[in-house]
Amino acid sequence: MIKTRITDLFNIDFPIIQAGMVWCSGWRLASAVSNSGALGIIGSGSMYPEILSTHILKCKKATKNNYAVNIPLLYPNVSEHIDLVIKHQVPIVFTSAGSPSKWTEKLKENGVIVVHVVSNLKFALKSQDAGVDAIVGEGFEAGGHNGLDENTTFCLLPLLKKYIDIPIIAAGGIGTGKTMCAAMSLGAEGVQIGSRFVLSNESSAHLNFKNAILKSKDGGTSLTLKEITPVRLLKNKFYQEIQNAYLEKKSILDIKNLLGRGRAKQGMFEGDIDDGELEIGQISSYLDQIKPAKEIVMEIINDFYKTRNKLNEY
Amino acid sequence: MIKTRITDLFNIDFPIIQAGMVWCSGWRLASAVSNSGALGIIGSGSMYPEILSTHILKCKKATKNNYAVNIPLLYPNVSEHIDLVIKHQVPIVFTSAGSPSKWTEKLKENGVIVVHVVSNLKFALKSQDAGVDAIVGEGFEAGGHNGLDENTTFCLLPLLKKYIDIPIIAAGGIGTGKTMCAAMSLGAEGVQIGSRFVLSNESSAHLNFKNAILKSKDGGTSLTLKEITPVRLLKNKFYQEIQNAYLEKKSILDIKNLLGRGRAKQGMFEGDIDDGELEIGQISSYLDQIKPAKEIVMEIINDFYKTRNKLNEY
Repeated sequence: MIKTRITDLFNIDFPIIQAGMVWCSGWRLASAVSNSGALGIIGSGSMYPEILSTHILKCKKATKNNYAVNIPLLYPNVSEHIDLVIKHQVPIVFTSAGSPSKWTEKLKENGVIVVHVVSNLKFALKSQDAGVDAIVGEGFEAGGHNGLDENTTFCLLPLLKKYIDIPIIAAGGIGTGKTMCAAMSLGAEGVQIGSRFVLSNESSAHLNFKNAILKSKDGGTSLTLKEITPVRLLKNKFYQEIQNAYLEKKSILDIKNLLGRGRAKQGMFEGDIDDGELEIGQISSYLDQIKPAKEIVMEIINDFYKTRNKLNEY
Repeated sequence: MIKTRITDLFNIDFPIIQAGMVWCSGWRLASAVSNSGALGIIGSGSMYPEILSTHILKCKKATKNNYAVNIPLLYPNVSEHIDLVIKHQVPIVFTSAGSPSKWTEKLKENGVIVVHVVSNLKFALKSQDAGVDAIVGEGFEAGGHNGLDENTTFCLLPLLKKYIDIPIIAAGGIGTGKTMCAAMSLGAEGVQIGSRFVLSNESSAHLNFKNAILKSKDGGTSLTLKEITPVRLLKNKFYQEIQNAYLEKKSILDIKNLLGRGRAKQGMFEGDIDDGELEIGQISSYLDQIKPAKEIVMEIINDFYKTRNKLNEY
């Protein structure tokens, strides 16, 4: 066990949180992570309300431990999702991609622990003022949706720690004990890990997507679509088409049309790695194995202790 | 004292290297840092050969400890600079912004310790093959010239450590003991620090530039001019003019003309913070004090120990 304000807040053994990810993190992954002593999150961003309901019920059945639901506030079903998590007494909700002031009060009045994801100091302060229990500070290297300030984990975390009193969870570039130890050196009391858990047996990412991640090299991802919703993608044929559209100085509307609908599902869930949208973090170039979620958690913890011991030798 | 392969290689007390920076790091800063037990570097990128000669001689006189010269390989005087450092028996040379294969052999034949700065794995492997003694792995958050892959310190360092045997120095986002501890968690055996030393009494950066750094917020820097030479700049009037030129879809030649010559000197050395080019790292939003270089080094070391102790409490 590693004790921080985050492990106390969530009542978990290890300060590791599996990120809520569209098309990759349903009840199976969330419950496997929660059963390992870390915190699993159901990513509701890709779910209709009735689907989310099913995942919550199955997750509750599969683990006695705490788990969470991530609700990206930019999706259309937000209000229904909020009502659902309250109805099902989901203990912890991570909100992201929106303002923390809109839903925090309602969730907290209903006994839900609220964490908001931010990518700069301004929104961290806003979140603290809105009464959230903790924040996730997400660096530029993180996969999926991200901020425009391009603050990296190395620069964002110490800045948040300097001005924020509530506990901070680091995200972006983390997937090993070494990176966990680094994030905790920067002031984080927990880490949120996405890409590493995409490469778990229990993630619902398509095997084609997992294999594409395993093959990726450094420079293989990029933060793009900055004028629409900034998102870090694996560079594939679809990504190249976006870049070509930019080079050809196409309009934002043209690029929105090119993106279309359902691209993330097509790529990440259905395995179309050429024409699908593949959201993944920069750490993918480091990752080289698919494993059960529990083994991933244990490996990270062992690596954390090893890294800490190594630091003590200097 | 903190002992790593880097402190052994350079014969220094602390694994801290002050980055060679155009217009900011002459003999005064380099010798002050070397006298503090870390390694000071003269940044030759802004110096004609005769100026570099003067700085080397003054540095030698001001410190008995090891010091280094940084030679960016994209400048016109490279060949003369190489001959000069050999003639003056400069003990350590950091090369950057170019191929490690061209000058390493000559420098090493003449007894010089060679370190090359890289921003991706490919060039790290090339540097190791070229026989350099160590590499600097420089993340996306670093100030000044940078790579195109946008690999952040959090993602670059573990990747280099996975495939490289020679010692690695981390750069980008480092300026405190917390960030040093984080970098060493990621596998670095030393840290290279730029921006923090710009804010030293001994740096030759103009006070206007120092004050602009002190006032900067997160999101206040950006990696730009990617088609010419990617460089991280403080966002000022000149930076905005570049962005406007991009928005107006101006040609690369037009942007090169807008950049012109001497912009870095104008901004960083002469203090024209509106029309000058202000090279600085993303960590600038965190920095809030100008201090003597020796105090900066001591503060970092104390903070490193404090951070390590804190990690041991978890």
